[in-house]
Amino acid sequence: MDILSSIAQAAQAVRDKVPLVHHITNYVTVNDCANAVLAIGASPIMSDDIGECADITAISQALVVNMGTLNQRTIQSMIASGKRANELGIPVVFDPVGAGASQLRNDTAKAFLEQVTPAVIRGNLSEVSFLAGLEVATKGVDTAEADASNDPVAVAKTVAQKYGCVAAITGAVDVITDGTRLVKLANGHPMLSKVTGTGCMTSGLTGAFCGANSDYLVAAAGAILSMSLAGELSFAQYGEVGTGHFHMGILDALSKLTEKDYLERGNADET
Amino acid sequence: MDILSSIAQAAQAVRDKVPLVHHITNYVTVNDCANAVLAIGASPIMSDDIGECADITAISQALVVNMGTLNQRTIQSMIASGKRANELGIPVVFDPVGAGASQLRNDTAKAFLEQVTPAVIRGNLSEVSFLAGLEVATKGVDTAEADASNDPVAVAKTVAQKYGCVAAITGAVDVITDGTRLVKLANGHPMLSKVTGTGCMTSGLTGAFCGANSDYLVAAAGAILSMSLAGELSFAQYGEVGTGHFHMGILDALSKLTEKDYLERGNADET
Amino acid sequence: MDILSSIAQAAQAVRDKVPLVHHITNYVTVNDCANAVLAIGASPIMSDDIGECADITAISQALVVNMGTLNQRTIQSMIASGKRANELGIPVVFDPVGAGASQLRNDTAKAFLEQVTPAVIRGNLSEVSFLAGLEVATKGVDTAEADASNDPVAVAKTVAQKYGCVAAITGAVDVITDGTRLVKLANGHPMLSKVTGTGCMTSGLTGAFCGANSDYLVAAAGAILSMSLAGELSFAQYGEVGTGHFHMGILDALSKLTEKDYLERGNADET
Repeated sequence: MDILSSIAQAAQAVRDKVPLVHHITNYVTVNDCANAVLAIGASPIMSDDIGECADITAISQALVVNMGTLNQRTIQSMIASGKRANELGIPVVFDPVGAGASQLRNDTAKAFLEQVTPAVIRGNLSEVSFLAGLEVATKGVDTAEADASNDPVAVAKTVAQKYGCVAAITGAVDVITDGTRLVKLANGHPMLSKVTGTGCMTSGLTGAFCGANSDYLVAAAGAILSMSLAGELSFAQYGEVGTGHFHMGILDALSKLTEKDYLERGNADET
Repeated sequence: MDILSSIAQAAQAVRDKVPLVHHITNYVTVNDCANAVLAIGASPIMSDDIGECADITAISQALVVNMGTLNQRTIQSMIASGKRANELGIPVVFDPVGAGASQLRNDTAKAFLEQVTPAVIRGNLSEVSFLAGLEVATKGVDTAEADASNDPVAVAKTVAQKYGCVAAITGAVDVITDGTRLVKLANGHPMLSKVTGTGCMTSGLTGAFCGANSDYLVAAAGAILSMSLAGELSFAQYGEVGTGHFHMGILDALSKLTEKDYLERGNADET
Repeated sequence: MDILSSIAQAAQAVRDKVPLVHHITNYVTVNDCANAVLAIGASPIMSDDIGECADITAISQALVVNMGTLNQRTIQSMIASGKRANELGIPVVFDPVGAGASQLRNDTAKAFLEQVTPAVIRGNLSEVSFLAGLEVATKGVDTAEADASNDPVAVAKTVAQKYGCVAAITGAVDVITDGTRLVKLANGHPMLSKVTGTGCMTSGLTGAFCGANSDYLVAAAGAILSMSLAGELSFAQYGEVGTGHFHMGILDALSKLTEKDYLERGNADET
């Protein structure tokens, strides 16, 4: 089956199975993450206290760990939930927000990945370059210009092989690989970087897809394509109105995506 | 006076008195809670540190405690603020989000209700069934299918009598009771479950109504009907557009509800 | 150059320099703050753990400290980041949300200002009156009626001189002063108080302007005028629809503000 057909099928599985997706995530974009996961057909739950987080993971079909506003309390919970997920075979999506931007984020990303094997790592080129062991010049939570010359395919393959997972780098062209198979997606719109949380939502969607599908390469590609198509569709309708409408339009579009959208609008290349 | 007229009057009292509503609530839906409370004509304040929470409660006209993203730090604050509210005769609304889903949530709900007498408990059928002492199969923050066979009226009456308060279970038909009087509401729209926070917002609105009205049965019914009507009105306008527009339309509608909406659109049954 | 031309130029500098703006802020309005900062052309980053906050400040061009949902953990971080910013000459914007409403907020505002010199303090009349040493009757996070008789110009000048910074009081007429120069702005719309976070967003925008401009009086005035114009433009388009649309329309308008908007719609008076 070609990748777009596989993605359309995976999206249908999300709607059919309504997986519960446990998020330990940042407080900046958490509402959008919950609404994106609902829009795509899954069910979100947010919980980050060490006294319950592993129990919540255990009743979920996927775990999303996002370092966005990490703190000493939640770092422990990320690791505890990640370990429980690994024990139970529940897929873990890791979003290393701002890796490279502070020692705490660097240390946390390393500690997490030493103790937890993710199903998918999803980040921007700076963040994933850091995980690949490259020197990075991260500027906050966006890809630094100095890192833009790194080859996303090489970086993603290094990370996929190093951590035994799917690595996904989102950007103008998205790169998703399990170290062997490689999917490139050329959808999306630059305005997606003018609204906070589009990366976080993509990681949440990756949790939704992984919670309903066992091929995590297809799952990650499906989540990323969903956000990219939502961006395109929202831009077409609201791009000229402003970022408020564009933001809301992303959620509208996610809740209305059809098989036809994936098959006809998707611009994918699998090798 | 019939219940719809009482509700319309209670809604006017909110706008007239502009009660300050203290929330100790989750970080997922907190922005929507604040905006819903503003839209209905009250004033929100959020504060959860043990060093000030009881002081903030003391200057407020209502306290809303929502267990959504509870943690060890905020559990203490919930209880401290709840006790202060009880001492001062300030109504407390308790939303046991996810009760039944983890031991920590179960223990917290029990500890809270042992130390604090709420004016209103509002939750879904799974959550309130747990408080009634029934075995529950909560799936995250939504009502589990296995719990759907519980009789909401019996469950709500049990909880109202057990805790000496108004118990409200929201669902396709909402049930609100003080153990004797019973109000059923048959408004709302299924799409309300496709946006996160509609339950939390309803609890926030319940705080607003309780802060301006002494009949907490009417207050709870008024808050729940407000959200249901907002859902109907938003769906009529934006249902086909997607969940982003529907979400925003709920807040639009809350800010525009009129006496006529309550009287003419309300589908209430009081016994 | 007249103040409106200076503001238009300052706004262009934000878009040209894309300053990174570190926020230690409340979880109620944080998403809107991030989106407002993106809309005006800057880049937001949120971080509040003591283990990294000063490092994040050090890579930023401005720091915004907002006391909205302060807690023992984040109070330490506010001070640590504030000190680092002072050491490095990075401008600090301080928003004393709810100063006067609890002892903890009063103590925190005092402790912060004893250890950190802000570039700009921005608040409502109650909050800034408290910092001026006046008795206040703050009602939650809004200006109390009892405080409305204070003279904003006198209060702002007192605070500016006391703390050696720009003091800005937003209200029907906004007052911005460095103790000597004084700017008054008569834009905005009352509906801005019906959406949570318009004050917080204004402080975030002040961070964006300060991160790209060295004249902090102009920066503060530019941020405040931006929010006021956004409110006017959104009200003109969505005022009758409700607060949901109005909220979104503010972000639309911020992302579309032009030099012409500042020059032709701005109602400023500089003395």
